[in-house]
Amino acid sequence: ILSKQIVVLPGDGIGPEVCAEAVRVLRAVAERFGHEFQFDYQLMGACAIDATGSPLPELTLDACHQADAVLLGAIGDPKYDNDPTAPVRPEQGLLRLRKELGLYANIRPVTAYDQLLEHSPLKAERIQGTDILIFRELTGGVYFGEKGRFDEGNSAYDNCTYSRAEIERIAHRAFRAAETRRHKLTLVDKANVLETSRLWRETVRQLAPQYPSVALDYLFVDNAAMQIILNPRQFDVILTENMFGDIISDEASVIAGSLGLLPSASVGDGAALFEPIHGSYPQAKGKGIANPIATILSAAMLLDHFGLQEEADTVRNAVQHALNQQVVTPELNPATRYTTEQVGSFIAYAV
Amino acid sequence: ILSKQIVVLPGDGIGPEVCAEAVRVLRAVAERFGHEFQFDYQLMGACAIDATGSPLPELTLDACHQADAVLLGAIGDPKYDNDPTAPVRPEQGLLRLRKELGLYANIRPVTAYDQLLEHSPLKAERIQGTDILIFRELTGGVYFGEKGRFDEGNSAYDNCTYSRAEIERIAHRAFRAAETRRHKLTLVDKANVLETSRLWRETVRQLAPQYPSVALDYLFVDNAAMQIILNPRQFDVILTENMFGDIISDEASVIAGSLGLLPSASVGDGAALFEPIHGSYPQAKGKGIANPIATILSAAMLLDHFGLQEEADTVRNAVQHALNQQVVTPELNPATRYTTEQVGSFIAYAV
Ligand SMILES: CC(C)[C@H](C(=O)O)[C@@H](O)C(=O)O
Ligand SMILES: CC(C)[C@H](C(=O)O)[C@@H](O)C(=O)O
Repeated sequence: ILSKQIVVLPGDGIGPEVCAEAVRVLRAVAERFGHEFQFDYQLMGACAIDATGSPLPELTLDACHQADAVLLGAIGDPKYDNDPTAPVRPEQGLLRLRKELGLYANIRPVTAYDQLLEHSPLKAERIQGTDILIFRELTGGVYFGEKGRFDEGNSAYDNCTYSRAEIERIAHRAFRAAETRRHKLTLVDKANVLETSRLWRETVRQLAPQYPSVALDYLFVDNAAMQIILNPRQFDVILTENMFGDIISDEASVIAGSLGLLPSASVGDGAALFEPIHGSYPQAKGKGIANPIATILSAAMLLDHFGLQEEADTVRNAVQHALNQQVVTPELNPATRYTTEQVGSFIAYAV
Repeated sequence: ILSKQIVVLPGDGIGPEVCAEAVRVLRAVAERFGHEFQFDYQLMGACAIDATGSPLPELTLDACHQADAVLLGAIGDPKYDNDPTAPVRPEQGLLRLRKELGLYANIRPVTAYDQLLEHSPLKAERIQGTDILIFRELTGGVYFGEKGRFDEGNSAYDNCTYSRAEIERIAHRAFRAAETRRHKLTLVDKANVLETSRLWRETVRQLAPQYPSVALDYLFVDNAAMQIILNPRQFDVILTENMFGDIISDEASVIAGSLGLLPSASVGDGAALFEPIHGSYPQAKGKGIANPIATILSAAMLLDHFGLQEEADTVRNAVQHALNQQVVTPELNPATRYTTEQVGSFIAYAV
């Protein structure tokens, strides 16, 4: 029996709706398995800017620091998206939270669900059986390097840096994940051009002997962007730096056929954060059409993180059950028309 | 009647084979239309390292400076690819040539050929009719920024910089291309994170009023990586910086169903360079199976560059004719088995 404190950051757009269903499922898990989960709702994103002027209020940050895990819906609002040069923006809250909590590894599974092959833009025979786990470095690189203007504002720079220690800590995680899977790790970099990539390659290569059962290979990011579409089944675990991971993991998401299915975990030395990979999708807000599955599967990763393997698998099986029964939101099956809440309740009930 | 000097850099792997066919087609064009093309063969890439120790010998560079255009096959050899940290590498030659010739705009058309829809990993109904023109900045950004190590080699950095002038010159070209096409320009950036991206957005936005017939929009690179696969027909002209362009343009190439079909032009204020987007494909070297069409279509772009519109269209029609007649290399139709030379000769004959 576990007692855990979970901070919920519903965020903007459809965030609150999908979070509500993930919390519903987590409550069902707690009841069935006899755990105690406490949910502490806090503000982050555009809603936090509106309420406090800051995308990540100190109250929220403190709560996250003290929590056992953080569940995030989505952040972003068109009024900020249209002007990425505005001084205060929702995504600053997310970037700061990642840094403050030391969430250096973003982990994204990409799976082709048999029931949903027809939804993918890719031909079924190319993607069937795809099962990739992407490790994206999340607190370094060009995201957090020095940036600014010079030459009276007419030139700009962004500096990308990586240290051996930053690379090693996430590489160890990726190697260990590969050990429990199909024993293949692919480092995606641009070592023919970038010095940071050469450091990545050197560092990862030096760790490889510690994981003799894992076959390590390397792919330039441009080639990786092709291979992920041409032959996704060739990949087991992919490891890459922050910016390449942002691009490659979003690209890979098309395999699943819907953004509404893909969860993610961001982990570090202490706290961990779980969120669907989709955005706040403001056009869908309040319509009951948002797919809660990505957030529910993120909650399953949260259970994994607590060491609750059986509980996590129960949630994943319940999701499979919903997909099998076509209890899904309209983007996956226009004929059935279940609402966000109905899908969430069905899955919670199946737990 | 034109008289032109063309430097040919056959390069490595299949480079010489595909260049031979493009030259054959250019000779046929010269004969039919009464032009004089002189071909000057020079070394670049792994073959140049083997012969001279340098991937871009001064002799080659001088010849390129004096030429009216450069036709490149492909560079790269496994003996260098496996170690991107080696001090002398084939791609250094290409990067230096781009910089020395001032080839700041890499232009890549991506077309879904009706005859080849079945070859694409994407479903035919998603891609049919796709016609994208990608403008990738080629002499700036993180490719040419300061890079190095610090902290006794345990940390590395790559600096990305852009100036307003660097952005403007390629943006003007992209706007002008959009004016002659479907009047849509999409800037791909990461303006929610990068200062250089914010400068791109600001600069391109300021030019937009000069092109009132062109609708300008913006896409974050992670979203673009999805949209190119989910709905490629939404794009007309795409403009982006060097590193994003490297990734996005290779990704987009999967739409065509074969790398062997896609040409590119790299242009600047003076000289221009034309090359297929595929690599040196050393496994196929000497087997007569390399598809020469990408290089032949690059030669068509070279004719465009000379202002020879009718000649260029004649080459493109000849290529269409080969595709219609299934006179193609085995990767496009395992049943027919034409060789590289047979495909090239067929197209040259059809000119
Ligand atoms: C919102 C943005 C800053 C963020 C990122 O680029 O990391 C998002 O795209 C993501 O992948 O979580
Ligand atoms: C070989 C390499 C340096 C080059 C690049 O990244 O520009 C290649 O990938 C390309 O796109 O022409």
